[in-house]
Amino acid sequence: MTNAEIETGGLDCLVRVRIVLIETRHPGNLGAVARAMKTMGLSDLVLVNPHCAVDGEAMARASGAVDVLERARIVPTLAEALADTVLSVACTSRRRDLPHPAYTPRQAAPELLAQAAQGPVAVVFGSETFGLSNEQLALCRWLLNIPANPDYASLNLGAAVQVLAYELRTSLEDGLIDLPVFELATHAEIEGVLTALTALLTERGFYNPDNPKRLIPRLRRFFARTGMEKDEIAIWRGIFASLCKD
Amino acid sequence: MTNAEIETGGLDCLVRVRIVLIETRHPGNLGAVARAMKTMGLSDLVLVNPHCAVDGEAMARASGAVDVLERARIVPTLAEALADTVLSVACTSRRRDLPHPAYTPRQAAPELLAQAAQGPVAVVFGSETFGLSNEQLALCRWLLNIPANPDYASLNLGAAVQVLAYELRTSLEDGLIDLPVFELATHAEIEGVLTALTALLTERGFYNPDNPKRLIPRLRRFFARTGMEKDEIAIWRGIFASLCKD
Repeated sequence: MTNAEIETGGLDCLVRVRIVLIETRHPGNLGAVARAMKTMGLSDLVLVNPHCAVDGEAMARASGAVDVLERARIVPTLAEALADTVLSVACTSRRRDLPHPAYTPRQAAPELLAQAAQGPVAVVFGSETFGLSNEQLALCRWLLNIPANPDYASLNLGAAVQVLAYELRTSLEDGLIDLPVFELATHAEIEGVLTALTALLTERGFYNPDNPKRLIPRLRRFFARTGMEKDEIAIWRGIFASLCKD
Repeated sequence: MTNAEIETGGLDCLVRVRIVLIETRHPGNLGAVARAMKTMGLSDLVLVNPHCAVDGEAMARASGAVDVLERARIVPTLAEALADTVLSVACTSRRRDLPHPAYTPRQAAPELLAQAAQGPVAVVFGSETFGLSNEQLALCRWLLNIPANPDYASLNLGAAVQVLAYELRTSLEDGLIDLPVFELATHAEIEGVLTALTALLTERGFYNPDNPKRLIPRLRRFFARTGMEKDEIAIWRGIFASLCKD
C-alpha cells in the first residue's frame, strides 16, 4: 500500500490492533509503549490491573503520544481486555511447554491485520517482572516470539511493542518509500564523462591506448554503478576541462 | 541461518555493525540503546561528543546490557567514528533535499550485513533534539528511513535502534545475505582521495579555498555514495598523481 492508502483503508486495520499490558510496574514503560504505538499508527491501549499510576513520568515518556495514554482503558482482568477481540496473541520470550503455535512478528503481522478487518485483535504483553502466567497464555490463540540473542533476550516493554507495531505498519506498506526525484544523467552523458576523462589521461600519459589494460572498463563500472545526476555530469566535465589547460 | 549458525559465522557480521550516536542528550537513551543492541546480538557502540554522562540512569536503563555501555567508545567527531568503516548509513525521519538513496531497515539490513563481512559498518543516529546536519549526512552513503505514521514519526532513540537491530538479526536468521565480491575501501581511504583531488584542483585553479562554494561537499557526497573499492582508490590516486606532474 502507499502511504495514502494506509491513511484510508489500511489505517482501519492498524487502529483495530489493541495493545494489552498486564500489571505493568514502571510508568516510564507506559509512556514508551504509547509513543511506540503512535509512531506506527496504533492507538488502542488497554491496561490490565496496572501496578503503577499513569503519572507525570508516563506522560513525559509518551512525548507526543499523550493522547494514546489518556485514552487508555483500565480493566481488572485480561478476559475483560480480550472480550470483543477476534484474535489474541501473547508476546513472550520464554520457551513454553504449552502447545501453542508460535510465530515471529513478521509471520504474525499479516494475519493480525487480516483478521482486524473483522474486529479488534489483541497483542498481550506481561509484566516486566513476571511475564505472562500459563492461565493468561491460555486465553490467547498464538504465541509471538521476537527473534533475539539467546544470551540476552530481554527486550524492554516499549521496545517489544515498537518491534511489533513496526512489523504491522511495514506489512501494510510492503516496503514502499517515496523517494525524492532528481534528474538522472543518461547513459550517453556518463559515457561523455568517461570519454573526456580518457582523453585527459591519454594526453597526460597515464593511459596508453596501445596498452590499455583494464583501466577504462574499471572506470566505466565505477561511473555506471554510481547513478550519476545531471548536475554531477557538469561538475566532472568542468573539472576535466580545467585540467586539460596548461 | 539457524540460531546455531548465527552464533558462529553470522555473529561476526552482527558484532561488526556499529551504532553511532551523535550528541545524545538523555542518559536514559544511552541505556535503552545498549539494551536494544544486546538483545539482538550487537555490541559496538560509539558516542560522538555526547551531551550527557554515562551515569547511573544510563546504567539502570541498560539493565543486563551494562557491558555494552561500559565498552562504548567516546570520540569527538563523526569522521573519527566512521574512519575504519566500509559503509555508513544515516537514520533520519525527515525528508531531505539531498538525493541520497533511501532505504527501509528491511531493505538495508541484508546489505549492511553483507558488507560487514569486510569490515565495520556504521548506522548513525542524530541527537534527540536536532537530528543530523547535512554535513553529517554527507559522510554517509545512504539514508535509512523507518516507516512511520506521517502524523507522528518521532521514534524514541532506543526504539529506533531496536527496530534496526531487530531487522539485522531477522535478516540473518532468514538467510538473506549475499557476500560482496570486491574489497571495499574505508571511509578514511575515500577521504584521502578527496583530499588529493582537492589539492589538485586548488593547484590548477579550478577550486578556490577562499571562495569554496559547494564543490567539495558535492564531491564528498559523490564519493561517499559510490561505495568505492580498494582497487579504485589506487586508480584514482594514480590519476591525481599523474595530473599533478607538469
